[in-house]
Amino acid sequence: MNSKSMTDKLQAIRQEMAAANLDAFLVPREDEYLGEYVPARNERLAWVSGFAGSAGMVIVLKNKAAIFVDGRYTLQARQQVPTDHFEHHHLIEQPPIDWLSQQLAAGSTVGIDSRMHSHAWFEATQGKLHTVGIKLQEVATNPIDKHWADRPAHASHQALLLEDTYTGESSLSKRQRVGKAIKDSGADLALIYQLDSIAWLLNIRGSDVPRVPVIMAFATLDTKGEMTLFTDLDKLPKDFPAHVGKGVTVKPDDLLEQALQEIGSKRFKVLADPGMTNAWSILCCRKAGAQMIIGDDPALLPKACKNNIELNGIRNCHLRDGVAVTRYLAWIDREVSEGRLHDEGQLADKLEAFRMEQAGIHDLSFDTISAAGANGALPHYHYQSGKPALLEQNNLYLVDSGGQYADGTTDITRTVVIGEASEEHKRMFTLVLKGHIALAMAVFPKGTSGVQLDALARQFLWQEGCDYDHGTGHGVGAFLSVHEGPQRITKRGPQQELLPGMVISNEPGYYEEGNYGIRCENLVIVMERADGMLHFETISLAPFDLRLVNNDMMNQAELDWLNSYHRQVRDTLAPLMNEEDRIWLEGSTRQVG
Amino acid sequence: MNSKSMTDKLQAIRQEMAAANLDAFLVPREDEYLGEYVPARNERLAWVSGFAGSAGMVIVLKNKAAIFVDGRYTLQARQQVPTDHFEHHHLIEQPPIDWLSQQLAAGSTVGIDSRMHSHAWFEATQGKLHTVGIKLQEVATNPIDKHWADRPAHASHQALLLEDTYTGESSLSKRQRVGKAIKDSGADLALIYQLDSIAWLLNIRGSDVPRVPVIMAFATLDTKGEMTLFTDLDKLPKDFPAHVGKGVTVKPDDLLEQALQEIGSKRFKVLADPGMTNAWSILCCRKAGAQMIIGDDPALLPKACKNNIELNGIRNCHLRDGVAVTRYLAWIDREVSEGRLHDEGQLADKLEAFRMEQAGIHDLSFDTISAAGANGALPHYHYQSGKPALLEQNNLYLVDSGGQYADGTTDITRTVVIGEASEEHKRMFTLVLKGHIALAMAVFPKGTSGVQLDALARQFLWQEGCDYDHGTGHGVGAFLSVHEGPQRITKRGPQQELLPGMVISNEPGYYEEGNYGIRCENLVIVMERADGMLHFETISLAPFDLRLVNNDMMNQAELDWLNSYHRQVRDTLAPLMNEEDRIWLEGSTRQVG
Repeated sequence: MNSKSMTDKLQAIRQEMAAANLDAFLVPREDEYLGEYVPARNERLAWVSGFAGSAGMVIVLKNKAAIFVDGRYTLQARQQVPTDHFEHHHLIEQPPIDWLSQQLAAGSTVGIDSRMHSHAWFEATQGKLHTVGIKLQEVATNPIDKHWADRPAHASHQALLLEDTYTGESSLSKRQRVGKAIKDSGADLALIYQLDSIAWLLNIRGSDVPRVPVIMAFATLDTKGEMTLFTDLDKLPKDFPAHVGKGVTVKPDDLLEQALQEIGSKRFKVLADPGMTNAWSILCCRKAGAQMIIGDDPALLPKACKNNIELNGIRNCHLRDGVAVTRYLAWIDREVSEGRLHDEGQLADKLEAFRMEQAGIHDLSFDTISAAGANGALPHYHYQSGKPALLEQNNLYLVDSGGQYADGTTDITRTVVIGEASEEHKRMFTLVLKGHIALAMAVFPKGTSGVQLDALARQFLWQEGCDYDHGTGHGVGAFLSVHEGPQRITKRGPQQELLPGMVISNEPGYYEEGNYGIRCENLVIVMERADGMLHFETISLAPFDLRLVNNDMMNQAELDWLNSYHRQVRDTLAPLMNEEDRIWLEGSTRQVG
Repeated sequence: MNSKSMTDKLQAIRQEMAAANLDAFLVPREDEYLGEYVPARNERLAWVSGFAGSAGMVIVLKNKAAIFVDGRYTLQARQQVPTDHFEHHHLIEQPPIDWLSQQLAAGSTVGIDSRMHSHAWFEATQGKLHTVGIKLQEVATNPIDKHWADRPAHASHQALLLEDTYTGESSLSKRQRVGKAIKDSGADLALIYQLDSIAWLLNIRGSDVPRVPVIMAFATLDTKGEMTLFTDLDKLPKDFPAHVGKGVTVKPDDLLEQALQEIGSKRFKVLADPGMTNAWSILCCRKAGAQMIIGDDPALLPKACKNNIELNGIRNCHLRDGVAVTRYLAWIDREVSEGRLHDEGQLADKLEAFRMEQAGIHDLSFDTISAAGANGALPHYHYQSGKPALLEQNNLYLVDSGGQYADGTTDITRTVVIGEASEEHKRMFTLVLKGHIALAMAVFPKGTSGVQLDALARQFLWQEGCDYDHGTGHGVGAFLSVHEGPQRITKRGPQQELLPGMVISNEPGYYEEGNYGIRCENLVIVMERADGMLHFETISLAPFDLRLVNNDMMNQAELDWLNSYHRQVRDTLAPLMNEEDRIWLEGSTRQVG
């Protein structure tokens, strides 16, 4: 699939290493934007190794190379990455830098392209290697870029200008608001490197990256809200200046380095988020004389707290998304009852087709997790990692999916039974659902963090000695990234308070390895009650599988919630469905208990 | 009560300030040991101001002085501290250092006795004053000590040598274990400045400080577990060397400064806990050349995780303590039914008398909170702060108390109705009790922190728009401090995981200002189940007032817990009570629901 053989590629990298006196070169999966998704042009890890998964690292030494992937990709890496060229290691159990420290002698030098690593990673890794006498060195040119003959061209998609009727606030107002936060942090300007922060600040969207509707760009923002945007100028439609309003200067992205040097030479105080800004930029500013102020991306919190226009859009797109998901669930039931057990890929395609019929759809919000039976026990399973499995009679099917709509982003998981559910299926599903309901019904004062609420979703599983090895909730953007900070509902971590207008997932689960997986996920909005207390408004709309609910394990308050939720699903979706699906919906949302 | 008049005292301090070119002098309530309780000899704040409360600060300026106390002491300060000599301010709403910054011009100098402040406070305050051009300066001699003619003498109580049958581990074993932790932190030795850490490490107890059974001392501990103890040598009984085993050197406390200088001159790396070590000691080490490693007291976590012998002692003393509390509750009921409404002071004395009849009792574990009616709404109310109130018919009485026994420390709160409970009393009590029960029944995996569990106790109050403004749980020592870290159950803060053997309080409450207060408190032990999950074993034993429980608001699991707890209280305490009290106990622990 590549014109160069793997031997040639590794040899090319090693020649560059020799020329620069390097004993190793690191190839992460990230590109300079450090996002979850990477465009084909920046799939350097895939170029060097053949590995197409979403996380991993290659280390090239003089005489060997190794690839590091996590548990969900072990099998896929075996299939895609030849073992005669690469040792295979576990990314978590044998961290690359530990392995590297064992391979190299003190006095060795490790090359990196500092554009491809966060500054936080750079500092931690530099410190770790320093203790064993190994030096981390930036390369001037990425050896892969130099030798990648058939590298895909830059995407040249035009940016979409998102009207105030979707965003509820002009770019100018947002930039001035965030500018004030930059001033409050003591900085003269901030590096805005998160693509979704740039898109939010400018009220634009794009198609440069799969699944995340952003354009590839870097930006700086000063205390008055004046932004300099570094990007491919061809992306910007002619109405862009009028759309964003005053105070936005656009420059081609090859002028970024010069701009950072100027910032440094003016001795500016520069706010940068070390986990979300590439090391190269921070090092460049610092070398040029800037004083770095380490802090959160100043757009993070304003972006997370949606205004009422955004919230209305988000509610609306969940209605259409609910129609797609519910039609899909009804279709599965019919197919199964007629003996057609499709494979996970066909199922995901069918769900995508239902979504693509909905108004305002732009893309999926992430690659669909369509997992039959034991594959459901892998929380981030993707059927493309191996051969898609068929639905399995008398087992569960888990589908976690979402869409990018002009008015919002969705993310929903349903677990359904194929054939007959066992008592264990019902018991475990009900424990998960009880946790989901406890969180959905929670009321809490201002100042409460997700860490404080996480146990509400786990308590019933914990009583039975069970748990799930992932967070309970992640923030979600408004027609932006499906994983958005700073709010989270997790066991540990930063205690960011939940604020009105934040959108967050409610997704407890249970995974029985080699057997089945369960997850119940809706999105919720943090809302304020008349008495000032906060609570969650559930906005995802699709039935939970009542065949998996053991009513005897539910108390009256839980049954009331479930019946009320199903009544809402039925009342809102039924008018939008054909008769066949409507009849299915009515049965699937019947009163229980 | 003091031989000098207040005018004379302030003048004496101002003369010392003038001689040292100081524009202000700060008098905190703490002494050099920074504990909650201070012996009479070190009540410097009371000497200068007359204020006898447990928290506050005086600032003496050239031409005025001010006292800062928190809300619970506002009234008491008005009564004890003459307003013609002191401005009165709120410790939280008008922080002393903010006030000081407004009073003094840039270039001013503020004197402190750095022995009386934690190093964490010193660094924060120095930084804050630096930004407004004010200098913080250590004084060579505390001006109060110099002028306090009738200062009480040093206490000369002999230390108690606590046998291994109580402690379950020899001093040598503990010191070697903690020495290893010091080594792991990269230090050569640690300053051990918490009095309860010293007492725990040496298996000794004392009577130098009210309510906390410790001796006044400082210590250093090295990586091999060798300790140097600086204290009044007269405190140590002749069996002390044999009791503590090898590796303990004892020196008179006036040799501490010289020892710290030697540590510095050897360029040692010194571990110190900045919140629990006085600034003077850390500054002294640093000036002499030591490299300070800032970290938690290395004895904190080992001390918090009680061994089985300690846990058995703790369970046993809770049995005797439960007898005292239950006899007291029965006595109140009889007195009230005969129309005798005692005052809060008489009540506290009676409870103390019941405790003092119990085997192994040494002291109370804190000053009893005995609060009738509206006084119960002040979570840290003390009847000595004003005139003790009488019990009020048809209102609540809250009593929070505990004892120091040779085999453990207790802390329990009961809220009872005097006369008839209103529907509101019952509703709010039941919401608090439901939270108490939810926490008591919690099951959770290893790695869980108190921050994750706190909401379980608050959830029912939150649903009704209510909350309480204090933590849900604090750690408790084994015949040591009733407030012991590092574990806590709180809304925010360090996410210390709960570990088997930790003792912690479970004390949700509700406070209706000007009206009544409710708190339900038991101590619990963190226990491990056969499946590896953790849960709480409730060890406090006394009935909850069933007249305050609205059964209709409780679900079956909650009623089952309450009935089971009351059965345990009845079965364990009844054999230890006389017939009159036993009959009362049987009625008070009857099956409900």
